[in-house]
This record gives sequence, structure tokens and C-alpha cells, in this order.
Amino acid sequence: MVSASANGGVHMPVRLGMVGGGQGAFIGAVHRIASRIDDRFRLVAGAFSSDSARAKASAAEFGVEEERAYSSYEEMARAESARPDGIEAVSIVTPNHLHFGPAKAFLEAGIPVICEKPLTARLEDALELQAIVQASGGLFVLTHNYTGYPMMRQAREMVAARELGQIRVVQVEYAQDWLTERAEDSGSRQAEWRVDPQKAGAAGALGDIGTHAFNLVSFVTGLTLESVAADLTAFVPGRRLDDNDHVMLRFAGGAKGMLWASQVAPGHENGFSLRVYGERGALGWHQEQPNHLWFTPFGEPKRLLTRNGPGARASSTRVSRIPSGHPEGYLEGFATIYREAADAIEARRNGNSIPPGTLFPTIDDGVEAMRFIDACLRSSAQDSRWTRLRSDP
Amino acid sequence: MVSASANGGVHMPVRLGMVGGGQGAFIGAVHRIASRIDDRFRLVAGAFSSDSARAKASAAEFGVEEERAYSSYEEMARAESARPDGIEAVSIVTPNHLHFGPAKAFLEAGIPVICEKPLTARLEDALELQAIVQASGGLFVLTHNYTGYPMMRQAREMVAARELGQIRVVQVEYAQDWLTERAEDSGSRQAEWRVDPQKAGAAGALGDIGTHAFNLVSFVTGLTLESVAADLTAFVPGRRLDDNDHVMLRFAGGAKGMLWASQVAPGHENGFSLRVYGERGALGWHQEQPNHLWFTPFGEPKRLLTRNGPGARASSTRVSRIPSGHPEGYLEGFATIYREAADAIEARRNGNSIPPGTLFPTIDDGVEAMRFIDACLRSSAQDSRWTRLRSDP
Amino acid sequence: MVSASANGGVHMPVRLGMVGGGQGAFIGAVHRIASRIDDRFRLVAGAFSSDSARAKASAAEFGVEEERAYSSYEEMARAESARPDGIEAVSIVTPNHLHFGPAKAFLEAGIPVICEKPLTARLEDALELQAIVQASGGLFVLTHNYTGYPMMRQAREMVAARELGQIRVVQVEYAQDWLTERAEDSGSRQAEWRVDPQKAGAAGALGDIGTHAFNLVSFVTGLTLESVAADLTAFVPGRRLDDNDHVMLRFAGGAKGMLWASQVAPGHENGFSLRVYGERGALGWHQEQPNHLWFTPFGEPKRLLTRNGPGARASSTRVSRIPSGHPEGYLEGFATIYREAADAIEARRNGNSIPPGTLFPTIDDGVEAMRFIDACLRSSAQDSRWTRLRSDP
Amino acid sequence: MVSASANGGVHMPVRLGMVGGGQGAFIGAVHRIASRIDDRFRLVAGAFSSDSARAKASAAEFGVEEERAYSSYEEMARAESARPDGIEAVSIVTPNHLHFGPAKAFLEAGIPVICEKPLTARLEDALELQAIVQASGGLFVLTHNYTGYPMMRQAREMVAARELGQIRVVQVEYAQDWLTERAEDSGSRQAEWRVDPQKAGAAGALGDIGTHAFNLVSFVTGLTLESVAADLTAFVPGRRLDDNDHVMLRFAGGAKGMLWASQVAPGHENGFSLRVYGERGALGWHQEQPNHLWFTPFGEPKRLLTRNGPGARASSTRVSRIPSGHPEGYLEGFATIYREAADAIEARRNGNSIPPGTLFPTIDDGVEAMRFIDACLRSSAQDSRWTRLRSDP
Repeated sequence: MVSASANGGVHMPVRLGMVGGGQGAFIGAVHRIASRIDDRFRLVAGAFSSDSARAKASAAEFGVEEERAYSSYEEMARAESARPDGIEAVSIVTPNHLHFGPAKAFLEAGIPVICEKPLTARLEDALELQAIVQASGGLFVLTHNYTGYPMMRQAREMVAARELGQIRVVQVEYAQDWLTERAEDSGSRQAEWRVDPQKAGAAGALGDIGTHAFNLVSFVTGLTLESVAADLTAFVPGRRLDDNDHVMLRFAGGAKGMLWASQVAPGHENGFSLRVYGERGALGWHQEQPNHLWFTPFGEPKRLLTRNGPGARASSTRVSRIPSGHPEGYLEGFATIYREAADAIEARRNGNSIPPGTLFPTIDDGVEAMRFIDACLRSSAQDSRWTRLRSDP
Repeated sequence: MVSASANGGVHMPVRLGMVGGGQGAFIGAVHRIASRIDDRFRLVAGAFSSDSARAKASAAEFGVEEERAYSSYEEMARAESARPDGIEAVSIVTPNHLHFGPAKAFLEAGIPVICEKPLTARLEDALELQAIVQASGGLFVLTHNYTGYPMMRQAREMVAARELGQIRVVQVEYAQDWLTERAEDSGSRQAEWRVDPQKAGAAGALGDIGTHAFNLVSFVTGLTLESVAADLTAFVPGRRLDDNDHVMLRFAGGAKGMLWASQVAPGHENGFSLRVYGERGALGWHQEQPNHLWFTPFGEPKRLLTRNGPGARASSTRVSRIPSGHPEGYLEGFATIYREAADAIEARRNGNSIPPGTLFPTIDDGVEAMRFIDACLRSSAQDSRWTRLRSDP
Repeated sequence: MVSASANGGVHMPVRLGMVGGGQGAFIGAVHRIASRIDDRFRLVAGAFSSDSARAKASAAEFGVEEERAYSSYEEMARAESARPDGIEAVSIVTPNHLHFGPAKAFLEAGIPVICEKPLTARLEDALELQAIVQASGGLFVLTHNYTGYPMMRQAREMVAARELGQIRVVQVEYAQDWLTERAEDSGSRQAEWRVDPQKAGAAGALGDIGTHAFNLVSFVTGLTLESVAADLTAFVPGRRLDDNDHVMLRFAGGAKGMLWASQVAPGHENGFSLRVYGERGALGWHQEQPNHLWFTPFGEPKRLLTRNGPGARASSTRVSRIPSGHPEGYLEGFATIYREAADAIEARRNGNSIPPGTLFPTIDDGVEAMRFIDACLRSSAQDSRWTRLRSDP
Repeated sequence: MVSASANGGVHMPVRLGMVGGGQGAFIGAVHRIASRIDDRFRLVAGAFSSDSARAKASAAEFGVEEERAYSSYEEMARAESARPDGIEAVSIVTPNHLHFGPAKAFLEAGIPVICEKPLTARLEDALELQAIVQASGGLFVLTHNYTGYPMMRQAREMVAARELGQIRVVQVEYAQDWLTERAEDSGSRQAEWRVDPQKAGAAGALGDIGTHAFNLVSFVTGLTLESVAADLTAFVPGRRLDDNDHVMLRFAGGAKGMLWASQVAPGHENGFSLRVYGERGALGWHQEQPNHLWFTPFGEPKRLLTRNGPGARASSTRVSRIPSGHPEGYLEGFATIYREAADAIEARRNGNSIPPGTLFPTIDDGVEAMRFIDACLRSSAQDSRWTRLRSDP
């Protein structure tokens, strides 16, 4: 065993509330574990469910006092902002159409928001939230959790240091298979809402996983996506939202790319991979082996970079907890977003600025992803015509 | 060691000539080795080079008698068709723009042709050759060699047996890095002609490797490509032909796909991979590990099928020479095309029909690939508009 | 995203103390994170360091009240066992030679012990501890954390269900490279004590990682190791403890195996892999890809089993937190040992029996590993003579 | 496509005979293909089978004239050595116990021998053959074909150049599964003789594949094996020869290693892998991906070296036929041994010395492997006592 990276210092845990995420909900459990890993949060309040019995039972299971188990987010925002020991942040882990309301309420109550992606079900809502954040100076953290993986920090730093030279091509894919058949008919609550335009918004796979792909490309490469040519398809009979998305990409400055998002691709569990090719080298990464990053300097042998291993850069070791060869996973990457949120909340609490190197996704990343969805929908509706994310060139 | 598959029987070797492929040429050497592996050909004549000294020296090296070392393909076609022991087949391994002339000459001389891909430099030439073949009943073998890999035969048979159910999505890519910089300026003859529109035709990477990708998709899936939306790019400054191609695919019957071909992708040596997703399962294959085929029946664990291993199907073992675990490679796959060409030539010689299971690519596959190139060029010229391979719907 | 496995229910967190693990210590941090992941512990006391300033600073960082930051484990055992809100368990994360003292003290104080491996520096100490546990009925959890990986639970269940038939061969290796050079001279505290016989005991790599390998073999196969033929080497000049171990294994019932442990194997970060071969099939696993398990039923294609994926068995999903394809890592596997410790402590608290399926390693596993070390040392000292773990046959 | 390595020059093919290898025999077919790939041999004579009808039919299939299809190797040696156009080399591809007789006969007739491994069924025979070769100055090539793989040449060159520093540890394994059940009862001729002490000699798996492992270790590392501690087992009931071998290794100079050979390891088709660890770096290779070689300079990221790719060394590209990324396989590696045999035969024919860089295995390698077998048998018979390959120290 070798020495671990230090992430020490004395911190007072942040008091956290949660909207959604009652018993049995997948993503709520993920947020709670992620908030605990670095011991920077205490879950003290929640509006875990609109079903009041489930809300109570959830609170009991999660160790939240009964009086702080609210039946609505409005009540929670009101009550908690009035308490001297009220929550210092809220996590919103509801389906897409229920991000906007709570986010607005807590921002208006002056409470920092940690929100699931995609930002909202509609681009207009996203823009309104953005305006609120800008006007209020509130803190908004979007859990595009894959940006928390150390090797994605490493990749970002390497691209910025121009180790690949100018970027030419980006190939990104996010493939899953859990909607290959009609999971929405077999009692999966998550499948139900994700294929329902009332709840998920106008995009299916594109909103759920395509936005992760888009976000990670932006995070790692720093490139601005200018336009898309998209071919969105719902393969499963009767499904109203896309379950397979083919998108060609054109970036400002001339780089090009392809994005494939699919939830009907047998054999892919969470098959998210990113490859970036530049004039002088390339990087490749696959989410299911998150501790590895392939790096090829053009004309030299491929190298397998490892988290905290030889060649690790500062931005990567900074968010790494244990030695190389001891795999960190999805929850640790997610926890890094939470830790950085805590750093930011603590900095505000103490009147300090956010520590350098903090890289959590923000409201602006969320709006950008909504523009991406919107452009893809418009392109696909026009027979894959190249469509700009922004009307002004 | 376990027992090998039998490919026995008594065969009289086919007398073979070659056009191009003089000393030092990569692909000529490949064809010669491929022709020898199963002992079905004897190289007895050649027009190896327009440079007469090089032609002579090549003949000496290849064991071809001096009098059958010709200085032009026209002379060779004339002389060999007049000899009682004249060649029974000719391999054409010249640059693209020099396929048409020799192919026409030998077909008109009644000599079977084994030709490198892409079929020709221009679609019109391809159509003219096709007409000649159809009119003459001549034999024409196109060396889309990747169809010779046993696991691609296996994949084709599995798709045909509907083990994947109806195909929905096809993801194919063929990425290399050897043109990342201006190899055409550093003395590589192959690089020179491949980026020269006079010699390669109007397509660069698309013609060289994109056609392999298209051909293999057709071979494995049996799907008919209906239309493409293509974004072809020449990234390297001053290059006149595409070196990176992004193409979205729509197949008859509703399947969709993406094709990426690139010769500016650092880290890829010969990175040709094919993935096919259907309603009930999926297949994945990578050319650099050609003895493996991933198969996922939906809802079951992934399986790693191996050449000649458990689960191997008849069409695969038929073209396999040695036991599983003893890797066959690129040359053996290529040799299978040659062996099947010999089977066909021998069948004609003896007045028999071609053996069932013979699957070498033909003039029609070559024409189809030229239509694919043509449609991509037209699409890319019209800002990636969806473009049909055939004008008639 | 698909639904997660449930691990719910209302639990009162266990009050935890820690011996060792002050600021900057690798394994202490791992234990703290592992104890938090499932929200089943609260760290409330500690004897973090014999250096009192460091002990205080550590307590502050870890959120432990100053009055419960003790300067010795003896004091801590005394004080905590006297408090009504005293600790309900203690984690011992000191170097090997400092396991025995604290473990004895806390067991005698009636406080359950969670202890790092190897159990002790000397076999005699291990046997004495075992006697204490047996006499007192105390709870003792040994953190052979790799048994917490879901795929190791899966493997164990599959072997027990005789999916491999009778086991014939076990190949296990645990290779690292961090002691390739004299890390003990360059300020690594961990390297220093691990190569010091006073602190580590008579075994170096064998104690540190060889015991993990031995333990995991026992856990997965259920086989009893009867004898060893060992060749232990210290390759690095001046090193007093083995840094490379070759061991042949003979199990009761006739199975055989090989074990390789090394800390001088460049390229291995934490290269722990286990392969088990039986009459009817085989399993293979590598710690650096812990979510995967290869399974080959003899005569059928290899299958890649995934955590929570198709083919997952109950014992595996039971200790899995998130869906397949979302990698869990080292910390989650470690956390499972902690969760099971909490289950056991809670069961005792409530007068219940330990939940079925709880599989944490115990004092007996620790003693068995000490016997393994002892037999290897004796064998190696006698020129690798086959040596029994127990004298009585 | 990039340019290939040149292996040109004008060569007169070597006239080759074969002993054994009649229709349907696996290894005979391999030798014939290997002899053809580089166009350096013509098969013109054979004693393909003791069954005369099969011998004739084989000759017809292989294109050998009827008068040169002999019914015994004695007759063939006599007749061919008397012909002016007699064979210039003979390949011996019979079962082990039938190597000695033909090898002796052809050596005494002054005809170079290319022989399958293991050299003989008994060490005494091997020593006698060695004496004959030494006395006669005859040419003897042993087809330890794995030394023909380009990446093994690369590895040898890197070790010799001290890129790993002094070697400390060698881990080699050769695992197959084809004898997991009683294949010898189900009509496999190969299985039958390989488990029959009358034909295979006193070693089963050890002779068939263990010798390959030993040979490759010697070839790559240049180390001299001094002693072994072996535990040989026949797991399958009723089998008289070992099917699983565990061997610990001690080399001159202090390096140590482990060797595992098994033919009862489900999931391994031809799982031959070699790993070498030195003071400054390590190499790893697996036969089923023969075009790859992992190289880790200690303290730097792992590198994936590829055949003919960046970092390829002269000894590797010298025996490589096609560009990187275009996989060469088992047959090409085998063909390299044949090509080098042809180089040596041609050099003798022309009174030249063998070209530098020629590295085919010789009679001495064969004798050394027989010593290895013998030492392992003696060790295993003495409860795995450390046993020297040579009695004199």
C-alpha cells in the first residue's frame, strides 16, 4: 500500500435537505451516499415523496427527524429558511419536470441547490432558472457526475496543456440496453417517467444520457459546440420519446465529432466512452473502467494512465482518495461533485472565494445541455439539417 | 492441441498473373502470400511495374520467368491469353485509377480477375466494368478481405439465423493514424497516391477504408443502405482528399447507423470495428483481435466467441485452418478470399458450379461501394443532406 | 438508469472508536470512508496517534470531540467502556505489531473489534487473541476487505453450488510494484514499517498481501489448505523481509494451486487476481476490474458476468449498491465489511442473531492466515519442503 | 495502409520432404502452410503415413509425385539422398517417440532436419542426437515456433539491451482445456498418443506445452535455469501422464520464477503467457494477442508495444511481414522458423554463413528442454525437492 492523497482540513458539515429520493429511488440513494463519502454533509431534512406515508418512512430510514420530513418542497423551503439551524443546501433528485419548481423555490429562499440533470424538462425553464441564479448570485450545482471522475479531470488538464495539440475529432457514445424492450410496461417507475414526455420533457435517451455525453465533451475538450445534425429514433414500438440518437457535431474552430446515445443497445450496461483526437495525440476513456485513461502521443506507443499512477496530474490526484490500483468507482466520482459543492458552500459561509481547481458543473452547463437537446430536436425534425445551438452566429 | 478443420482434397494450382505489386509494394506482397497459404495458385506472370528494370527484378524475386515479366498489362493480356499454359487468373494490385484498364483488358481476354478495392476511381468506370462482367459472364473477385475473417462469417450466419432479431442499429468505424501528419511529403509512395485525386479518385479515406466499412456492414447484416448524411473533412492542411469521414446511415427496413472513417486518429493502427444491435441481441468485433466475437443475447451475460471454439458455426469453421487459441490473422483472412477464388476458377475449369458457402466479394459489391462513395460525396457537398445511393426510390 | 438493490431499513448508527489512523495515514482514511458509506457508524472517539499533537489535530479533522481524543488505547478502552454513550466498536488500523495489544484491551472491555490484517505480528499472539474471543464470546471482524467485493460473493456462491464441479486447480497472485526500489529509504512511513521485522512480523509481502490472497482463496473455494512449498525472497538489497513469494499449494481433497505475491513487480499497482478451475468450469477475477467475473462452463463460450447484471446471484446483489455498469470500487467492497459488522453489532444490541448471508472475516480467518504465514516461513527455511499448516494430519 | 517491411531478395526454393503429417493431421498441415508463406520451400517428397493408402492419398493432396511418396522414412532417406534432385531438408512431424529414428536417419544421410518438439521421448535419445549433430555438423531446427513471434524477438532484444535491468522474477504459464475430460476416449488421435507414455514419453502436458514455456523463457531472458521444484499431477481419473504441472524455478544469478502448464484448465484455449520483471521494468505478453507486448519502465505508465508499431526494434520488424494493426498470427510466427531454416540451408548451399539475426531453436535447445522435463520428473517423484537440471554445479 502506498500513501493516499490528502484531502484533509477541518470542516463543519453542511446541513442538507433533499427533494425526492424516497425509499427505493435509485438516484436519491446515490446522492445520499455521495454526500457522506467525504463527511461534508449531514442530511437533516427532506420532502422525500408526495406520498406522505412514504415520506415519513423515508425520513425514519434516512435518520431525518420527523418534524423535518416535509410533505412538499414549498413547505420545506419556507420552514427551513426560517430555522436558525435550517438547511444550507438542498439536493433535488426528482424526475425532470420537477426540477424547475423546487430549484426556483430554494434559490429564492437563498438556499444553494444541488440538482440532477437534465436541468429542466424545457429550455424556457432552464433559461428562467439561469436568470434567477444570475440575479440572485445563488449557488447552483448540477450533478453531471461523470466530470467528477479523476481521469476526466486528468484528460481536461492534458487537453488544456495542449498535449494533444489542436483537437480535430471527438467521438463520444453513451449506450445502455435497459430499454431494449418495453421496461415501461413492467413496473419500473424509472422507465415509466423517462419515456413519458410529460415528465421527461421532449427528449428521452437524449435528455437522460445524451446530455451527459455532451457535457463531458465540453468539460474535457473546452470546445464550444456550434451545430448538430441529428437523427433521433424511437425504435421500440409505441414509445413516444427517442431511445436511440445519432448526432454529428461541429465545434467552433473546426473540430468535428459524432455522438451516439442509445438505450436499446444490448450488451451495454452503462457504456459511456469518450475519445478525443488532436494533431499531436489522442485520449480514450471508458466509464466502466474509470480509473484508466489511454493516451497516445502521435508516433509513440500507447500509454495506459491510471488514477494516482505514474503520469497523474494535479487536477486528478486532487480528487482521488486512494492509491492507484485500488479502484474508485461511480460513487466516488459523484462524491467529488458533492465535496466541491461543500467547498463552495463553506467558502460562502466564511466569506471566502471558492477554492481554485473546483470544477463542479453549474447552471450554465445545464442551460448549454438544454440548448443541445433543443438543437438536436429541431435538427431531427428537419431531416437532420445542420442546426445551430444559438441563433446568432 | 486439438484437431484442425479439414480443407483437403486434390487441387491443381491456378496459374496466376499480377498487375502491379512490384518489389516493395505493400499490397502486392500481401496478395502473393495470400495466394500461397492454401497452395492453390502459382504466380507465373506479371506486369509488376511500368519501370522495366523494376519489373524484371521483381519477376526474378518472385520466381517468375523472364519472358513472362511484361512491361504492360495490355501486352500481358495479349500474350498470356495466347499461351496454352497462360494464366488462369490475374490479380490487379495497382492504385485505384489503374484498376479499370487492366480489369477490362483481362475480362475481355476471358481471364478471371482478382482486383483490389475500391473497384475503380470513378463510379462510371465501375458501372462499365459491371456491364462487361454481366455481358461476358466473367469471374470477378474483389478483395474486400475483411469478409474472409472467420468471425465475420460467423457474424453473418448468426444475423441471418436471426439470433439478434431484427437489426436496429449498426455502429461501424475504421480508424487509422498514418496520415495524421503529411506522410505524403515524406516519401511514402502509398501516401502520395492515396491523397492524389488523379490516382485515388474523388474520395480519400472514404475510398481506402470507408468502403471496407460499408462492405463489411452489408456482408454481415445483409441490410441495404438506402441513404447517407455525410460530413467529409480534410483536416491536414493542403490535403485535397478527405482524411476523416462522419456518416449517418439509414437502411431499408428502418435500421440506422453511424460510420466513422479516419486516417488522422492517433493511436489507431488498423482500428476497424463493427457492432450490430438487434431487438434480441448484439454482436461486436474488432479487427485487431480478429479471432474474437462478442455476442450478447439480450438479458443474458456477454459471451466471447472464438474462432473454432465452442459455439463456432459451420460458415466460420469452414474457413478456419487451425485450432482455437492459435490466432489466425490478416493474411489468413485474405487467403480465404484467394482460396474461394481458386474454388470458383477450378469449378469453371471443370464445368462445375461454385461450391456452396463460397462468399468472396464480387463486382456487384464493388459497384455498391462506389455508389456509397458517390452518395457520401454528394451529401457532403450539400451540407450533409440525406442522400440516396440510388435515385429511384 | 435502472433500479438499485435495496439495503434499507431503519438503523441506529453504531458509535465507533479508532486506534491509529491519524492524519495522513492511508488505511485509517479508508476505514473511515468505509464506515460512512452505508451510514451505519459514527466516529466518536479515537487514539489516533501516540503523538499527542497529531492525535488532537486528527480528532479535530475527523469531527471527534476533544475529550474523546485519547493519547493511548488503554486509556480509551477504560474511559469509553465507562461512558454510558461509549463506543460500541473499535477499529484497529495500526501496524501489525500493534494489533494485539489494543485488540486484547477492547475485547476484555467487552467492545467489538474491527481489525486490520494480518491479525498479529506473531502466530502465538493470534492464538491468544482467538482464545480470548472464544472465551469471551466477543465480536471480532477482520478486514480482509476483498471478500466484500460482490463478484467474490458471486464466485463463492457459484463454487458452493458446484457450477465448476470439483475444484482441481487454484491460481492466485497478488502483485504490486511499490517496493521495487528502496521506498523505505525515501520517507514512506508505510514502507518503513512494512519492511521492519519489529513492526511487520517475520513476513513482509507475505503478510501484507499474501494473506489477502490466501484468505480470498479460502473464502471463494471453501477449500482447506493442507500444505505449502514456499520460496520466499528479498530481492531488494538490504531488505530484511520477503518482497517476492512463490508458493505451491496442496488442499485437502486433492486440489492444487500456486500463489505468487510480490511487491517488486513493475507494472502491477494492485494486481490481485484469482482463478479457479474445476472439472466442469472455471472462474477468473481481477481486482482492478472488480465488477467483472469471467465464467467458463467447460465446452461453452466464456461469459463475462457483471455486478448486478444478468446472471448475478443473491449473495452478490445483496452487497451491491448501484446498477450494473456503474462501477463500485475498493471503498464499497470495504464498506460491505463495515456494514456487515454493523449488522452484527446491531443484532447483538437487540438480542438477535446475525442476519443470514453475513460473511465478514473473523478471528478464525485471521488465525488461519497466520498459520499460512508460519507454514510458508518454515517451508522456505527448509528449502521449500512441503510443510503442513497444522502438525496433526 | 503503410509500407511493409521488406524481406526480399532472390531465393531458390528449398526442396523439402516430410515424415508424418498425413491427411487430417493437425501439425503436419501447420508445417506445410508455414513452409509456403515465404515461398522458400517446395514439398517434393514424404513418408506421410505408415498406412500406405493414406500415404498415397496424402501425397496426391499435397502435390507430391507418387514415386516420392515413401512408405517408410528409412526408404525415403536412402532414396532421396541418392537423387540429384533429392530433398534438401526434411520436416519431422510424427509423435514424440518417432522423432529420434527419422532424425538420426536423415542426419546420417546429410540432410538437414526440421523437427517438432519435444525433441525426443527420452533424454538419452536427445543426447545421442545432439552428439550426432555435433559430430556431423548437420543442421537441426527445432520448431519451438513461439520464438518466431515478432514480439518475442522484441522482448528478447529489450531484455538483452537491459531495458528491464537485472531480471528478478519470471512468471510463465501455458494453459489449455482440451484434456479437461477424457478426450483420449472420444476418438481424438492426438489426445490418444499424447497421454500414452509409450508414445509421448514420461511427460504429458509438461512435454507438450511445458517445454514451450521453458524454451520461451530461455529465449527471451537468456537466463539459465538451474533447478526446479515440481508438482506434477494427473487430475483426470485413469490418465497416466501429467495434465497439470506446477513448477517453481531458480535461475543462475538469482532470478526466480513460476511455471504453470495445464491441459485441464477450462476457458484456456492456448493460454500461453510470459511475464518478466526486472529491477527497472517489466514485460508481459499473451500468445492469443501475439502482436502486443506490454512494457512498463518502473515508475512510468505502462506502454502497449505493437508489432511494427512505434518502438518496434530491428529484431522484431525483421521477422514481420505486414504493417502494425494488421494482425499476424500463429502461422506467420511458425513461418519465421521455416524462413530462417531456409536462410541457413541456402547459406550452406552457397558456402555462406548463416545471416546474423537468425534465431531458430536448435538441437541444444531441444536437449535443454529434455533436461528440464527430466529434472521436473525427478523433483516431482521426490516430493517437489529442488532438483538441478545438471548434476555438476
